[in-house]
Amino acid sequence: MDAHEKGFFTEENSVEVVTGRNKNAKDERLKLVMEVVTRKLHEAVKEIEPTQDEWMQAILFLTRTGQMCNEWRQEFILLSDVLGVSMLVDAINNRKPSGASESTVLGPFHVEGAPELEMGANICLDARGEDMVIGGRILDTAGQPIKDAVIDVWQANDEGFYDVQQQGIQPDFNLRGVFRTGPDGHYWFRAVKPKYYPIPDDGPVGQMLDRLGRHPNRPAHLHYIIKAAGFETLITHIFDPNDPYINSDAVFGVKESLLAEFTRTHDPDRAKAYDFEGDFWEVEHDFVLARVGERRV
Amino acid sequence: MDAHEKGFFTEENSVEVVTGRNKNAKDERLKLVMEVVTRKLHEAVKEIEPTQDEWMQAILFLTRTGQMCNEWRQEFILLSDVLGVSMLVDAINNRKPSGASESTVLGPFHVEGAPELEMGANICLDARGEDMVIGGRILDTAGQPIKDAVIDVWQANDEGFYDVQQQGIQPDFNLRGVFRTGPDGHYWFRAVKPKYYPIPDDGPVGQMLDRLGRHPNRPAHLHYIIKAAGFETLITHIFDPNDPYINSDAVFGVKESLLAEFTRTHDPDRAKAYDFEGDFWEVEHDFVLARVGERRV
Repeated sequence: MDAHEKGFFTEENSVEVVTGRNKNAKDERLKLVMEVVTRKLHEAVKEIEPTQDEWMQAILFLTRTGQMCNEWRQEFILLSDVLGVSMLVDAINNRKPSGASESTVLGPFHVEGAPELEMGANICLDARGEDMVIGGRILDTAGQPIKDAVIDVWQANDEGFYDVQQQGIQPDFNLRGVFRTGPDGHYWFRAVKPKYYPIPDDGPVGQMLDRLGRHPNRPAHLHYIIKAAGFETLITHIFDPNDPYINSDAVFGVKESLLAEFTRTHDPDRAKAYDFEGDFWEVEHDFVLARVGERRV
Repeated sequence: MDAHEKGFFTEENSVEVVTGRNKNAKDERLKLVMEVVTRKLHEAVKEIEPTQDEWMQAILFLTRTGQMCNEWRQEFILLSDVLGVSMLVDAINNRKPSGASESTVLGPFHVEGAPELEMGANICLDARGEDMVIGGRILDTAGQPIKDAVIDVWQANDEGFYDVQQQGIQPDFNLRGVFRTGPDGHYWFRAVKPKYYPIPDDGPVGQMLDRLGRHPNRPAHLHYIIKAAGFETLITHIFDPNDPYINSDAVFGVKESLLAEFTRTHDPDRAKAYDFEGDFWEVEHDFVLARVGERRV
């Protein structure tokens, strides 16, 4: 027997030797996943040719990333986010039929149990920020309105913080609400103009971004989860196209179709009707849901 | 501008968009490393097409791996070991001239400051296990002996444990020693026959091995670090070719050239000279060091 027949590891046969050990795997999917992971990992190592010191730096980076995680902080999700992996997994799992609204990442700030509100309610509970009114329709891909669609919306305030990041400063469930459409599929609510904000950057992922010359900011956006019976749930954002970070979202969440128009409106009568103090922002954005089983592009 | 010009992320352009953000990196080497890592990671995700749930399982596996690490346990090194990455990095960093002894992984059980002993000393301090005498020469690639070569040797006992794993059970520095060659380049010492042992398998890496149908064992071996002025330091093992796990080392450390011959010897006169009780094991193994700067294959 030569070394290869005995299965001894060499630079040349490294992938085959390692993945060959999995022939009795108890989990066929894991076996396939580890075949790909091992092959790509070895390809990366062979291309990079790390020194022993660089290898140790990588080990310690991964260790610090794991040890940064706690009940409130998931540094490996941040790492996945800033490397575009989260958006890639999102894209792969949410290929949509033509005309359906696109998805983007859920993010870490969704909270279950936000209050269901009357259409038109103001989700801003502390009267801080620039007034905004948002509306549109929930449609199917044929353009017909969807009744009883449930819209779960949440956003950061005008300083870039979610309520859960400022407990005791913002009221509970500030800038969160759940709305249900009527037969016309229309929704609307009042809020404040959101602001860009940094992802948590005081850990190993923030240090990596800094060394890569990248900023940690996400452009201003509102989050939506839209559910309706018979349709695929849509998890998405809408973005302010005039945000300074619109072309460089730290987590790559922006898509062309998710750019909304934020219009500055001077209309004292409407402002009064909305209970706003003066000029306000206006956003009109429709969402198109794909039916369950509808053909994907 | 179309979506690509704006740099918005899609499944198709994912690698270019993510790596394009690093154009102002403060560290050119990190920029190159992250270009390769991002590309291979995206290739892996596109080939695997993980579900959101599988992605989350991967996030949680990495998190558990980081959180298993402490002063005594480095679970990411174990992960690197069982995926063949550690041996690959070792191979890349230790390409040797023809005829030079091959390297293998250092492992986690080396201890600085083991005592320098007289040639022939017995490194087994608790008289447990089957007696063994080990010898050979330290040579250059021309076959000439190397004087003042320093040989740092350590091994597990006959139950598969290192002293540092059994503090209070084994004496300090049991089965460790440092030897220095004379002008003939010869070394010899007494010890006990080592036994195979499992890598720590009570953490996430052990669970992964189990699901992959892999055992956690390393075949019996002795560790060596051999240093000599003007020569490249050699970090290696010698292995027992008759060990049940010789063809399936959990960390892929075995190489053809590292197989030693462990011979069972019946020779009462020599046993008496070695202060052994009866039959003993005998190993004869030469090591060949590469000169610093010697051409590699």
